[in-house]
Amino acid sequence: MKSNDLYSANPLEDEFSHIELVAHSAFRDKDIDPDEMPVRAARVSHAANEKTGKNPEADQSLVNYLAKHRHTTPFEHLSATFLVVCPLFVAREWMRHRTQSFNEVSMRYTADPVGKIYVPKTFKQNHPRNKQASAEPLDENLQKFSKATYVNAVRKAIQGYNLLLEAGVSKEQARGLVPVANYTEFYTTANLLNWARFCTLRCSEDAQYEIRVYADAIRSILENVFPKTWGALSTHFV
Amino acid sequence: MKSNDLYSANPLEDEFSHIELVAHSAFRDKDIDPDEMPVRAARVSHAANEKTGKNPEADQSLVNYLAKHRHTTPFEHLSATFLVVCPLFVAREWMRHRTQSFNEVSMRYTADPVGKIYVPKTFKQNHPRNKQASAEPLDENLQKFSKATYVNAVRKAIQGYNLLLEAGVSKEQARGLVPVANYTEFYTTANLLNWARFCTLRCSEDAQYEIRVYADAIRSILENVFPKTWGALSTHFV
Amino acid sequence: MKSNDLYSANPLEDEFSHIELVAHSAFRDKDIDPDEMPVRAARVSHAANEKTGKNPEADQSLVNYLAKHRHTTPFEHLSATFLVVCPLFVAREWMRHRTQSFNEVSMRYTADPVGKIYVPKTFKQNHPRNKQASAEPLDENLQKFSKATYVNAVRKAIQGYNLLLEAGVSKEQARGLVPVANYTEFYTTANLLNWARFCTLRCSEDAQYEIRVYADAIRSILENVFPKTWGALSTHFV
Amino acid sequence: MKSNDLYSANPLEDEFSHIELVAHSAFRDKDIDPDEMPVRAARVSHAANEKTGKNPEADQSLVNYLAKHRHTTPFEHLSATFLVVCPLFVAREWMRHRTQSFNEVSMRYTADPVGKIYVPKTFKQNHPRNKQASAEPLDENLQKFSKATYVNAVRKAIQGYNLLLEAGVSKEQARGLVPVANYTEFYTTANLLNWARFCTLRCSEDAQYEIRVYADAIRSILENVFPKTWGALSTHFV
Repeated sequence: MKSNDLYSANPLEDEFSHIELVAHSAFRDKDIDPDEMPVRAARVSHAANEKTGKNPEADQSLVNYLAKHRHTTPFEHLSATFLVVCPLFVAREWMRHRTQSFNEVSMRYTADPVGKIYVPKTFKQNHPRNKQASAEPLDENLQKFSKATYVNAVRKAIQGYNLLLEAGVSKEQARGLVPVANYTEFYTTANLLNWARFCTLRCSEDAQYEIRVYADAIRSILENVFPKTWGALSTHFV
Repeated sequence: MKSNDLYSANPLEDEFSHIELVAHSAFRDKDIDPDEMPVRAARVSHAANEKTGKNPEADQSLVNYLAKHRHTTPFEHLSATFLVVCPLFVAREWMRHRTQSFNEVSMRYTADPVGKIYVPKTFKQNHPRNKQASAEPLDENLQKFSKATYVNAVRKAIQGYNLLLEAGVSKEQARGLVPVANYTEFYTTANLLNWARFCTLRCSEDAQYEIRVYADAIRSILENVFPKTWGALSTHFV
Repeated sequence: MKSNDLYSANPLEDEFSHIELVAHSAFRDKDIDPDEMPVRAARVSHAANEKTGKNPEADQSLVNYLAKHRHTTPFEHLSATFLVVCPLFVAREWMRHRTQSFNEVSMRYTADPVGKIYVPKTFKQNHPRNKQASAEPLDENLQKFSKATYVNAVRKAIQGYNLLLEAGVSKEQARGLVPVANYTEFYTTANLLNWARFCTLRCSEDAQYEIRVYADAIRSILENVFPKTWGALSTHFV
Repeated sequence: MKSNDLYSANPLEDEFSHIELVAHSAFRDKDIDPDEMPVRAARVSHAANEKTGKNPEADQSLVNYLAKHRHTTPFEHLSATFLVVCPLFVAREWMRHRTQSFNEVSMRYTADPVGKIYVPKTFKQNHPRNKQASAEPLDENLQKFSKATYVNAVRKAIQGYNLLLEAGVSKEQARGLVPVANYTEFYTTANLLNWARFCTLRCSEDAQYEIRVYADAIRSILENVFPKTWGALSTHFV
């Protein structure tokens, strides 16, 4: 089981869950911190001396202003690429964000991911008011019952899948049995504006716990890499 | 089981599968056929008399030229909205098209779709060369075995799901057991250029049968509604 | 000089300025008002009876809720196409909105639009605080001087352009002389979410007067065509 | 006048024209060449060992295959940012590419760019067949006449602009006189797939010379930075 560090995390704390910063924008001139890009890009608009770094307070003040007043284009010049291993139902919500670029493992092509299953640590009740959320944990007996039921059902599904493969069924058909709790793996690239929008939606209390922990990991990694830019976005951009 | 007509289809020929044209662009002046929109839009580029309909052959010739030479912007002014009921694994491929607008049933919110399962009519072997495709049907015995195995596995999965709901587990957690053969339902809107791109990819022989039949249905419906425009796109735009 | 009506306007009140609603989404079933589309699309998310019109108050309440809580996808299913005649410097700001589809007259191809020039009715001073805006009108003498200077300069530019054409210079080179006050013409299509975003930015006090009057016209036309949907967006979506 | 080097160019060979690679994607692990990103991203699809560099021929063969068969998503993970100084009429064509991120100098805000004018070195005739292109140079007398006419007209336009500013007219109104041959300046970021599409359109013979030289510069710079990836795209992706 991998642990968390500055650039990666194990959001669901099991043997499969993983997110890792793979790549991000860098100036060709290696002496300039990519974190200064949005300020440089913004300053082109009034043909000002585009240099940064001479007056760090003015730089930070400008990037805060941009975030607060939703002058969002300067944040589009910085991109970040992550490698993600998450359950299919999380990936389904994730890939509704049409501003990201994806490459994902194909279960038409390989059986490799099948059987790597996410099992909730705690089973929770429906939220009393919010019909799409969950709330309090079940009591201990129902916990045990739920876990056993869940694990048994996914085991049967994976057994079925393997029997189909052994019978010679194509992977693209056999995958119909794969439960959406199965892990998938993909690369995703977006710019910082769109990562901020992703986090606004997916770090929210309304988001399901299982995607929220990935969004929280992204937030924390980007804060390490781009402290000025991400600081401005997470403080001033709702 | 619904049958096919000019504006709808039952692509997987079972009691759930469905696609239906719900809405499309129309001129405010109801006397003008929306099929004439791309020609009108294209003619603005040389400030020509933008009227259409006087010389239908010249109109068709222009729209063919646009498609052939990939002057694609005039095709973006026509949009079409479909209501789709398809298996989750088809929806997963479908929603990788980032140029469409989606609203989908939420299994965090409702258990309603759970248990509506797609079962292949014919189980096929892996393609001998194309690792991601399927080819020849299995022989009769293996067919029967595969179908029984498949149906049994999804039944167990749905039983598990229902037991979890009865135990009080939230829907957003219980859905982890739902197999990707389960049907989902969504609205999707795109412009005609992007429907053409969708069909280019998904009507191809390389596409999985289960998404290809939906793409074929779209192609045939759009041909009915926009014979000139779609005719040009499907003949001259690869 | 064209006057305003429910579906068109003459935003800059001269002989060239024009905006007109050309087309918009319509249900295939003509009895359903397209204004009901966002509610229908939203209701698919909880597999509710998707019908609309039975309880108009509940419908309006839902569309208001969507706009207020930024559940924006249901607004993407409605599109609207405008024909626009506006100055080049307005078109330059307009076409920075990357969510619209454009077809524009080409000055490589035709000299037709050259010489149709926008002349401000009132020349204004720079805003005392906002460096990019204008504020109080100049006094009468400076008004006269400015107008004469402006009209004289554009006349010389167009004369130069015509001399180049007469000398046999290609249109694509001669157009270098065309001032950005020259009118251009284009078709543009976007969905209602993106028209709302356009209007949020371009109806604002910070926007230049000459684009604001076009955005105001769009707002008023869409209010006529989609009173429920646009009402929700303009009241509840900032 | 700046000269060309590996990362920058002076496409129109005068004192203003400029393009320069400012930033691009880099792996967090500095030992990996960003040029290997598309191969790594593509290999996730079959859960293969995603490493690159062990078998460079297999890597190149895969990236060529991706480009040729239009498996375009792996090319979206690499981004490149340019600083561009080009005429307004070039920027107008450039910014129709809706997949790029822009920050541009604002003539509402600053008069700084006004008066930096592009003057063609050679005036050409309209193309005999292609109505939107130019072809053979004019003869010497008409060359001289055209150049004098052109230079005189832009001088008058800039004089008019300056007189308006002196009279106290706001910059946002005075800019109406600025000819589209005036230089503008902007940052632009896109991924490599979209730079390839840009170059396909804008390096073509049909493109106007003045934008083609910028597109050619981009092609040559990206070839230096990403020889494997760009090599595949420019050879195998039309």
